[in-house]
Amino acid sequence: MMYILDLLGTATFAVTGALAAGRKRMDIFGVVVLGCVTAIGGGTLRDVILGNHPVFWISNNVYLLVATLAAVGTFLLVRYWRVPMRTLVYADAAGLAIFTVIGFQRGLEVTGSYSIAVVMGVTTGVVGGMIRDVLAGEIPLILRREIYASASLCGAILFALMHYFQFPGVWAVIVAVLTIFTIRLAALRWNVSLPLLRLEEER
Amino acid sequence: MMYILDLLGTATFAVTGALAAGRKRMDIFGVVVLGCVTAIGGGTLRDVILGNHPVFWISNNVYLLVATLAAVGTFLLVRYWRVPMRTLVYADAAGLAIFTVIGFQRGLEVTGSYSIAVVMGVTTGVVGGMIRDVLAGEIPLILRREIYASASLCGAILFALMHYFQFPGVWAVIVAVLTIFTIRLAALRWNVSLPLLRLEEER
Amino acid sequence: MMYILDLLGTATFAVTGALAAGRKRMDIFGVVVLGCVTAIGGGTLRDVILGNHPVFWISNNVYLLVATLAAVGTFLLVRYWRVPMRTLVYADAAGLAIFTVIGFQRGLEVTGSYSIAVVMGVTTGVVGGMIRDVLAGEIPLILRREIYASASLCGAILFALMHYFQFPGVWAVIVAVLTIFTIRLAALRWNVSLPLLRLEEER
Repeated sequence: MMYILDLLGTATFAVTGALAAGRKRMDIFGVVVLGCVTAIGGGTLRDVILGNHPVFWISNNVYLLVATLAAVGTFLLVRYWRVPMRTLVYADAAGLAIFTVIGFQRGLEVTGSYSIAVVMGVTTGVVGGMIRDVLAGEIPLILRREIYASASLCGAILFALMHYFQFPGVWAVIVAVLTIFTIRLAALRWNVSLPLLRLEEER
Repeated sequence: MMYILDLLGTATFAVTGALAAGRKRMDIFGVVVLGCVTAIGGGTLRDVILGNHPVFWISNNVYLLVATLAAVGTFLLVRYWRVPMRTLVYADAAGLAIFTVIGFQRGLEVTGSYSIAVVMGVTTGVVGGMIRDVLAGEIPLILRREIYASASLCGAILFALMHYFQFPGVWAVIVAVLTIFTIRLAALRWNVSLPLLRLEEER
Repeated sequence: MMYILDLLGTATFAVTGALAAGRKRMDIFGVVVLGCVTAIGGGTLRDVILGNHPVFWISNNVYLLVATLAAVGTFLLVRYWRVPMRTLVYADAAGLAIFTVIGFQRGLEVTGSYSIAVVMGVTTGVVGGMIRDVLAGEIPLILRREIYASASLCGAILFALMHYFQFPGVWAVIVAVLTIFTIRLAALRWNVSLPLLRLEEER
């Protein structure tokens, strides 16, 4: 089940990368590259930091295949169907939720430490989208005011607690994924944000 | 011969990094840093992803030396000789072609998989220039409309085919390098681009 | 002593990350993320390039803790105390100085080569701040005209010489850190810069 969820997250993030590329009027190869980088960027950084070689998409070709197909599919689809720009935000929230949980599990397997696993979950969740936004010349979603990484962090900590209290695995995954997805979308819907750091600009 | 080609690619990319730094009016050390990062960035990411430690420029000091000399040489040269800005584009195309082939070979040696080798070839080819452009605050060449990563991909696939059908090594390298270089320059010359992803902007 | 210095550098860089996040009006979690990334980014790249697994902040949780506390502390402090924007520049200079020396030592331990150790020192010193500036959508300090990476390089080379001539360790560290800090601040104070690469713009 985790494997299917992982592929789903990969496809979802690839779609967001492809849509971001499309907004910048990139050609089909740019769409595929940005889709793949978004889909595998977070997990690659996680595996490299954990020293987990070979990284996941080298040991299993399916990830690259899914990401490529999702990007190409997006490319074809938007020629015939008007995609509302909100799709990017929804898909990004889903990918964020799924990859946070996957990253947490991978981090826990390798290091056995809950705090490192939480950091790895957030890393896996947010880095792909961050690279996408930097490459597309946008301000990363994570830096905008709405709750983003905070959603990922809440979900990762919740998942850590459920793991610690031996809440059954499948349900823990579902609860954590839905929590992150809901927090993120609720924050967007009602425009919630955490307290800001107010700084006098002196320049 | 591959080794000489590798050093040539290193020097070429270092020149593009130095020129990009010069356009941003950086001082000599900034020029050297951006030159080196451009020259070794792609290969470093490749080696780190492949878990190929120590990375190539740590096991062999010559790469850093060549990149530094090329950057310093560029710095001195442009004081006495007007460098047409197109030089950056030509040198970048040559570096892209050479590093794609080198990256493919390194990827094939380590993983034995053609598809991963192609991805590693494209990674090695495009990442150095991508870091250069992001650091210099430019829109990465890869995201502009002209064929760029596509040229690298074509060459890598062609090289994979030649390798599979046991086309003699030296000629395969020459053919692949020239193919990438030619596609890239032809695309620039005649302003060719692949079909774009058209997206309705709804904002 | 090195350990305390290392934690001091971590806290200092975390403060610069938090201040940069504050200028972009990010919420508290954004402040913590940017603080942590700035504090551990350089060392993480160093350890990943050296193949030094697990990376330093995975093998020792204290680094993440210190960075998080420093970022949260900055967040709380600036609510009650007007932080002059120059603080960011001073703290950045201190972090640059400390991390250059730490990175040099780590590089020398692993590779035994002075030239690689110098590169690792500069990498550790400048990369955290570079990521911070790219994520915050600023032109990286390293690319501005004032002496920045050059200060780090001078200090790293001086430290290498002192190490070679067996200058007592503690004093060598102090001299190198103060040298980098002083060069950087003097360059800012008197607006010194190295010769620029002048390039005819033809566009």
